[in-house]
Amino acid sequence: MAMKQVANSAIKAIANSGSSSLLTRQLHASPGSKKIVGVFYKANEYFTKNPNFVGCVEGALGLRQWLESQGHQYIVTDDKEGPDCELEKHIPDLHVLISTPFHPAYVTAERIKKAKNLQLLLTAGIGSDHVDLKAAAEAGLTVAEVTGSNVVSVAEDELMRILILVRNFVPGYHQVITGDWNVAGIAYRAYDLEGKTVGTIGAGRIGKLLLQRLKPFNCNLLYHDRVKIDPELEKQTGAKFEEDLDAMLPKCDIIVINMPLTEKTRGMFDKDRIAKMKKGVLIVNNARGAIMDTQAVADACSSGHIAGYSGDVWYPQPAPKDHPWRYMPNQAMTPHISGTTIDAQLRYAAGVKDMLERYFKGEDFPEQNYIVKAGELAPQYR
Amino acid sequence: MAMKQVANSAIKAIANSGSSSLLTRQLHASPGSKKIVGVFYKANEYFTKNPNFVGCVEGALGLRQWLESQGHQYIVTDDKEGPDCELEKHIPDLHVLISTPFHPAYVTAERIKKAKNLQLLLTAGIGSDHVDLKAAAEAGLTVAEVTGSNVVSVAEDELMRILILVRNFVPGYHQVITGDWNVAGIAYRAYDLEGKTVGTIGAGRIGKLLLQRLKPFNCNLLYHDRVKIDPELEKQTGAKFEEDLDAMLPKCDIIVINMPLTEKTRGMFDKDRIAKMKKGVLIVNNARGAIMDTQAVADACSSGHIAGYSGDVWYPQPAPKDHPWRYMPNQAMTPHISGTTIDAQLRYAAGVKDMLERYFKGEDFPEQNYIVKAGELAPQYR
Repeated sequence: MAMKQVANSAIKAIANSGSSSLLTRQLHASPGSKKIVGVFYKANEYFTKNPNFVGCVEGALGLRQWLESQGHQYIVTDDKEGPDCELEKHIPDLHVLISTPFHPAYVTAERIKKAKNLQLLLTAGIGSDHVDLKAAAEAGLTVAEVTGSNVVSVAEDELMRILILVRNFVPGYHQVITGDWNVAGIAYRAYDLEGKTVGTIGAGRIGKLLLQRLKPFNCNLLYHDRVKIDPELEKQTGAKFEEDLDAMLPKCDIIVINMPLTEKTRGMFDKDRIAKMKKGVLIVNNARGAIMDTQAVADACSSGHIAGYSGDVWYPQPAPKDHPWRYMPNQAMTPHISGTTIDAQLRYAAGVKDMLERYFKGEDFPEQNYIVKAGELAPQYR
Repeated sequence: MAMKQVANSAIKAIANSGSSSLLTRQLHASPGSKKIVGVFYKANEYFTKNPNFVGCVEGALGLRQWLESQGHQYIVTDDKEGPDCELEKHIPDLHVLISTPFHPAYVTAERIKKAKNLQLLLTAGIGSDHVDLKAAAEAGLTVAEVTGSNVVSVAEDELMRILILVRNFVPGYHQVITGDWNVAGIAYRAYDLEGKTVGTIGAGRIGKLLLQRLKPFNCNLLYHDRVKIDPELEKQTGAKFEEDLDAMLPKCDIIVINMPLTEKTRGMFDKDRIAKMKKGVLIVNNARGAIMDTQAVADACSSGHIAGYSGDVWYPQPAPKDHPWRYMPNQAMTPHISGTTIDAQLRYAAGVKDMLERYFKGEDFPEQNYIVKAGELAPQYR
């Protein structure tokens, strides 16, 4: 059982560290009925418009009947910030917290400290950077995602954004709704994707799917990662490995960010690194907003060094009304949406249910789902 | 020489019809210096922003120096409508008219009748439906396009529009610029492209490129055309032939229009044919606006039968301020732009230059470029 492993590991950790907090936490965990809290975005009037819309507060991942029939308590909310929010009330006695990257419950070290019963943090989707993973590991918690649940969704969305930027879609759409018609005002900076150099920074599950989808566009494909991708996939896509990121940057017409947010990648694209990119570069970032230096991106869009920026990730989320990316030129941004298509929701709801079932039965999760297990972080977060 | 063939054919036509207008026209054509008129969109302040921006009035396809150095007269304008427009002044004595689908010079039977010296109509791009082709054929004119010059550009743009509709991009972008954040308002009707059924109506040069680009998205691909595509390409893309259009329509989640505008296809998608489509269908049309019944599309978008409509073609062009497609729900329209990327402009400018060179030398054009030759329409326009 996943939780047993955590407990064993926790006991070992205590033996090594002399701390007693972990032992206390495990003792407080009751064996039967669990209190499960889900933090999702609210759908309001949109909920009734689609019977498969399970990823919202109202849909509650389709788990309510099942959880309650088994005697568990299931609280669902979107109210996640500040000392008086709904989530805060349940922190002291919840066992499981489910959240999504689209409306993330920020699980800080402080919240972990208060959450004496907490055992399991589940991400409905991919990307658990809303959790203080080091603090979670130290507290003996298990953190897991539904790995793979929305990689296709995100990769498709990235290709859409590449095309939107390369072909200069947004100004054209603006003309339509404002009653205008000025082909030149779009065409002077609209290009074909064919023949351009596209580099993905990160070639994990999403990056690989993107490379496959880019293949028929006849681009020059580059990728940077810690390790080379499978030679078969390299041959299939024609993508070339670039060991040195800074050497790759000036070669790319289009750069796609496909890395997790970690302490190493936080703020990685600052003024200096953006300056290494080709003038007029187009950037797509559906990974995490905090990988970029917010103001450096806005400044480079204003100067024209970045000719277009599109993505669905911001920091923090929801993005405040005065977030500079809302107002910078040549942006094609959306709220955090790429991984929460209806298809993705059905997949990550099923994945969360599967992990809860295993948790109740004391079984392990699929290995690739673990982000923190037995006090250890998954390799991509180290 | 292309023109000689036209003359021979014209003489034959006269022998058959008893008309004398063709003979008159050929006699008026002078063998030396030609008057060439180009009708393009105006770039104004955008012209100086890109040295490769040749497709506008100011860029004049990069032909001015070359044409004038050979003693030809080259008039370029965007003023193409009404009895007092600049184009109208030159109709009586021009020899060659170059235009584009993006800002089309509508060459009516009446204008052809007035254009006593006219020999050659060149389309910088693809799609010569702005010319009354029957009248052009009867008048013994040659009509030719730069076939292939922007097929990649249009196919890429179609894939972008498919993704924009499937993933519900536009409402997300609106939220960003209006200071809003409501993931549910986008997600309730955002889907993956994977697994959906995409049908292209027309699988010519553009349709085939689209099918190839769709292949890695793991869709169910269908196509309807007069003839089956090459078995090798069918195998490569997995696309299935649908002989009966009306039987294909209800199967498709997404329909892409890839046919030329002809007398047979004009207004082909009327209320009745749209009703045969699946409720919630998404439509992409970069072919020609007049293939659709304008009001039937707007009504079906309002009722929700069409869940999204995206394209860059309208009738007429420029689209008037009150064109209903500007204001219908769930549209992701732009002005006519997909085939006039900077890359496409360079290719169709080179193709026009090549045909003018051949015309001056009395050589034939590449066979696939002819739309009207020796009184005959190309197969796709019959």
